[in-house]
Amino acid sequence: MRATVMYGAGDVRVEEIPDPTIVEPTDAIIRVTLACVCGSDLHPYHSMPASEDGTPMGHEAIGVVEEIGDDVTGVAVGDHVIVPFAYADNTCAICRDGFQTACAHGGFFSGAQAEKLRVPQASGTLVSFPADTDESLLPSLLTLSDVYLTGYHAASMAGVQPGQTVTVIGDGAVGLSAVLAAQQMGAGTIILMGRHQDRTDLGRQWGATDVVAERGEEGVAKVLELTGGEGSHVVLEAVGHMPAYEQSYGVVRAGGVISRVGVPQYEKAPVGFRSLFGKNVTLNGGPAPVRAYLEAAIGQVLDGTIDPGQVFDREVSLDDAPEGYRLMDSREALKVLVRP
Amino acid sequence: MRATVMYGAGDVRVEEIPDPTIVEPTDAIIRVTLACVCGSDLHPYHSMPASEDGTPMGHEAIGVVEEIGDDVTGVAVGDHVIVPFAYADNTCAICRDGFQTACAHGGFFSGAQAEKLRVPQASGTLVSFPADTDESLLPSLLTLSDVYLTGYHAASMAGVQPGQTVTVIGDGAVGLSAVLAAQQMGAGTIILMGRHQDRTDLGRQWGATDVVAERGEEGVAKVLELTGGEGSHVVLEAVGHMPAYEQSYGVVRAGGVISRVGVPQYEKAPVGFRSLFGKNVTLNGGPAPVRAYLEAAIGQVLDGTIDPGQVFDREVSLDDAPEGYRLMDSREALKVLVRP
Repeated sequence: MRATVMYGAGDVRVEEIPDPTIVEPTDAIIRVTLACVCGSDLHPYHSMPASEDGTPMGHEAIGVVEEIGDDVTGVAVGDHVIVPFAYADNTCAICRDGFQTACAHGGFFSGAQAEKLRVPQASGTLVSFPADTDESLLPSLLTLSDVYLTGYHAASMAGVQPGQTVTVIGDGAVGLSAVLAAQQMGAGTIILMGRHQDRTDLGRQWGATDVVAERGEEGVAKVLELTGGEGSHVVLEAVGHMPAYEQSYGVVRAGGVISRVGVPQYEKAPVGFRSLFGKNVTLNGGPAPVRAYLEAAIGQVLDGTIDPGQVFDREVSLDDAPEGYRLMDSREALKVLVRP
Repeated sequence: MRATVMYGAGDVRVEEIPDPTIVEPTDAIIRVTLACVCGSDLHPYHSMPASEDGTPMGHEAIGVVEEIGDDVTGVAVGDHVIVPFAYADNTCAICRDGFQTACAHGGFFSGAQAEKLRVPQASGTLVSFPADTDESLLPSLLTLSDVYLTGYHAASMAGVQPGQTVTVIGDGAVGLSAVLAAQQMGAGTIILMGRHQDRTDLGRQWGATDVVAERGEEGVAKVLELTGGEGSHVVLEAVGHMPAYEQSYGVVRAGGVISRVGVPQYEKAPVGFRSLFGKNVTLNGGPAPVRAYLEAAIGQVLDGTIDPGQVFDREVSLDDAPEGYRLMDSREALKVLVRP
């Protein structure tokens, strides 16, 4: 089959590799009908050391079940399914708590930008949607694999309450998704920190009441001004770099919440008296357990409540996946759909 | 009046200094009837650079109102009152949110280990208790000035749910108070990490179901063993040093909460994928807004529901306050009452 493989920073190729096969009786094989490029794929695209082996890329997909192992229940060959970016048994204590991304039998996908994908723990991982779903809704269903529900997870962990002020840091697809999720939860004011007008325009369409293009101290001052000096009840951090973290504790209100879903590109960060502790700030977030949110979100897409597929502004064939990376890296595209 | 003044690490003196006077019309002057030495007083006791000026010490007190400024309402001369360790107007938006330690018109007390104390923002800060309260309950009321309600704040911010597993790090007076608070909230298992048996015995009396004397990796392994490998839903960190922080993220369950009330003696700490983010751990806590909890807690002390005054195992006169510091620093005493 054809698959997208990264060999180092900036070096993405589409190659013929062996078809995946059932390895464990809990596996399924799906034929990928839609995949995409994630903002987090750009981290290795910037920094991956050159390697002769290469890494199959991609962790977001919808597809059709082609084959299932002997122990797979709940999904059948021919089912149209969403593949969460992390697989999980969905039965252990941690999964039952709703944190499937930390399942002891789970892991993160790699290799979804391909014609086929092996899905471990298929019973716990895959969720079906109707085979006759209108083609126009498929991009939105694909966003439930990661991007929209990652934005949603940020807002969910922050516990956004109706009327609250929410600041979203980052105007990438996850940040815009966080705006949409905060709006769904009834946030009163949504301040989007971003400086790409085509993106912040979509953010406004999805509920952002204010856009702050400034960054750093200037951006912090602007948000404080917009919040009467008190700061934001909730900050949704959808970037993952230290300046975004620093902005977060700069704009958060005393007693407020910083919820992070941008994968941190740092390990240590300020948490002491001058940053979090003195203001009784809550810091949370992590890899989104999208499996926990899937059924409800599929319903919202199918009934038209949300249309998160608008984040896709470009589409490429699988063979053009490297161009998809380039388009996202250069910010010519917000998010690129890959159609195998 | 006589007052306790610190001039540098290990150098605490009791001296004659001018009586405090009303400075702002919102001030009150109280005669201190009971004060005490706090674990956080030991931080400067270890590290304060020598100074000719000296710093008046102490931030926990109960007393009797001697004088009030023209704008003070709600408390009257002669009232018996609890002094929260932070003063606040208790009317601003942040106070109304319940985070009085971040009040824009507030601040932290210093100088309560003395015969008298000036209380700014007296209307918002002081809470009265009945003048005829039995003498035996006064130490427990004194703990509502800081130590018990700081332990309570840890458990409150963590949102301890009935049946949950709670690990308390630190067997000082705040840690033991956190055990008592977690027990009040219905925690199912309370693991106390501490190695002073006289202290952990009080912890067991207050609800600790397990005591782990080991520290570091060994202590983490023990807690994981006690929790079936899953870790603790809630960790209450009552120390403030980096090893306690490291233990916290070592023992916390995926999706769990680390609530800190030990004043951090660090600014930066691990928060990335390997510590907090990967497990979707929530980090919160800060200086306890004890004012928010006072009325309810006074009721619990007066009706005998809780008896947090048991943390006091030594009493000294004001003139012997330096000996009180020595007793706590050497761990001969858990917490020392100072009676002016």
